[in-house]
Amino acid sequence: MPELRKDPVIGRWVIIATERAKRPSDFAKTRTEVKASFCPFCEGNEDKTPPEILSYRKVGTEPNGKGWWIRVVPNKFPALRSEEPIVRTGEGMYDKMNGVGAHEVVIESPNHNLTLADFDIHHVEEVLWAYRDRFLDLSNDERFRYILIFKNHGAEAGATLDHTHSQIIALPIVPKRVKEELEGSLAYYEYKERCVFCDMLTQETKDNLRVVDENASFISFLPFASRFPFETWILPRVHESHFANIQKNGVVDLSRILKTTMLKLKIALDDPPYNIMVHTTPCRETKSMYYHWHLEIMPKLTKVAGFEWGTGFYINPTPPEDAAKFLRTIEVNV
Amino acid sequence: MPELRKDPVIGRWVIIATERAKRPSDFAKTRTEVKASFCPFCEGNEDKTPPEILSYRKVGTEPNGKGWWIRVVPNKFPALRSEEPIVRTGEGMYDKMNGVGAHEVVIESPNHNLTLADFDIHHVEEVLWAYRDRFLDLSNDERFRYILIFKNHGAEAGATLDHTHSQIIALPIVPKRVKEELEGSLAYYEYKERCVFCDMLTQETKDNLRVVDENASFISFLPFASRFPFETWILPRVHESHFANIQKNGVVDLSRILKTTMLKLKIALDDPPYNIMVHTTPCRETKSMYYHWHLEIMPKLTKVAGFEWGTGFYINPTPPEDAAKFLRTIEVNV
Repeated sequence: MPELRKDPVIGRWVIIATERAKRPSDFAKTRTEVKASFCPFCEGNEDKTPPEILSYRKVGTEPNGKGWWIRVVPNKFPALRSEEPIVRTGEGMYDKMNGVGAHEVVIESPNHNLTLADFDIHHVEEVLWAYRDRFLDLSNDERFRYILIFKNHGAEAGATLDHTHSQIIALPIVPKRVKEELEGSLAYYEYKERCVFCDMLTQETKDNLRVVDENASFISFLPFASRFPFETWILPRVHESHFANIQKNGVVDLSRILKTTMLKLKIALDDPPYNIMVHTTPCRETKSMYYHWHLEIMPKLTKVAGFEWGTGFYINPTPPEDAAKFLRTIEVNV
Repeated sequence: MPELRKDPVIGRWVIIATERAKRPSDFAKTRTEVKASFCPFCEGNEDKTPPEILSYRKVGTEPNGKGWWIRVVPNKFPALRSEEPIVRTGEGMYDKMNGVGAHEVVIESPNHNLTLADFDIHHVEEVLWAYRDRFLDLSNDERFRYILIFKNHGAEAGATLDHTHSQIIALPIVPKRVKEELEGSLAYYEYKERCVFCDMLTQETKDNLRVVDENASFISFLPFASRFPFETWILPRVHESHFANIQKNGVVDLSRILKTTMLKLKIALDDPPYNIMVHTTPCRETKSMYYHWHLEIMPKLTKVAGFEWGTGFYINPTPPEDAAKFLRTIEVNV
């Protein structure tokens, strides 16, 4: 019998379709490489991107030249632009505003072929510091209400370039999906006087059915109501609403658990396409007791179809307990 | 400058990213065929599906034999099953229920190669009658709260078989996405004392910027805050909350506008992958003044990536006005 499970944060139901159960080996190689003869993100091609906003580079090297190991540039085809003040207007019954925002690309390495799963953990730390630096800088712009850090890996996950990179989008509104998560967490907090994510941490640690990895500061696990096979979340153990408040030791521990998790997924699923998103409190809001920042990692192994679009609820053919068990058996040295 | 547009029903923002503007010809052939040597949906293979629930067939032919033109069967790999009563349980902080529901397949034709865009309009009418017959029958089961009729065309849209078919899923809950639409419509109605969809009809007819086709009973148009390039909705002109209340002449008119719209999309986008969903009021609810049933058609031309997953808001590179203008230029004889 299939099982319906409810996400405790936003109340979204998921069908764990045991009748269609899939094991990791059932997922054929799903990632296709983005074919391109020229890569603007490789070292030596710095003049093929807009001028850099931030780089971590060797002492004595010049901006927009060689010698960097992390480089942040504006997106050449930005979804949003930052030149104007916000103007909200109506068009009959409809509402619109101009597309004010920022859209940046974090080039995570000068090397074309490495990804998060391949970097040594010190390099993953550098990626995380770049995320935080850009997040803090963008937060200073009063027009921005929410900043999303995300990564698309593989064409199936929406990547248009193969060279490993992340993106940061600053938005003039708090998007619907984030509002839902904030409202759901607040409702739980008002009822229980506890953070729903802290409660998840307690139960996941106790049940130990869905945990992939843990260290002093973080835990990585597959959520009870996973939407997708091998969907994995990474949560800080100590309650904290804002990603940008991460401390030095936190970056070290996050780097280690992120690298371990990504490497296990890479081995288990033969380098699958995936998305990673940082979920955090909107940038103009103060610390809260009810929201808990975290990472969500979503391998793209199944297609989202009419059922999901029509209902906003998901059919997942792989119980998270099975996927977690499989990931735990994979030994990695990090 | 890109533009942010707000969906008037559920308040979802969309970025119309004019910087990345795409014309129909920019979308490469995106649909790949599902390769299969054997098709269980073809005439003559009736014994390869579970026994039929409904068929429209020639007088004198036997159930589960040849002679049908529409055939409805249970899904061989159902996401939900109907044998048990509903049991809701907790697992620590988490909530779950057994997967009670129904999952059926509407085989729209005995011919392997035809699709909605190819059928003559009398055959499209037959498909619509089958939708309604199954909807009504499933509504009699008191355990079901919502019935979704949908269609996946092409592997990229989630189809696992090429032979044209639709699916019907009956659910023991009202899913989140549907609740949002109902709540959004109700909020608008409470404020304006008018149906938000009726207001859309009025404005779309007046503006005439996004309309694709219209007839006595229906209008097809691209919504102001389209999530996807060429996303198209079909709405009945006269307010009606329940799909199942469609009348004989309504079926005839819906058949004509659906065939025309699908044929225009097929020609414009070279037989794209797509999803169609019927959005209607939950089956246990009485007629309402605030909700208006409709069809949503979503060609799959862009990839949903980390940004969309992290925020629930969409980047659409093709303004709906441009897409509608293009679709209007395509002449079809229906």
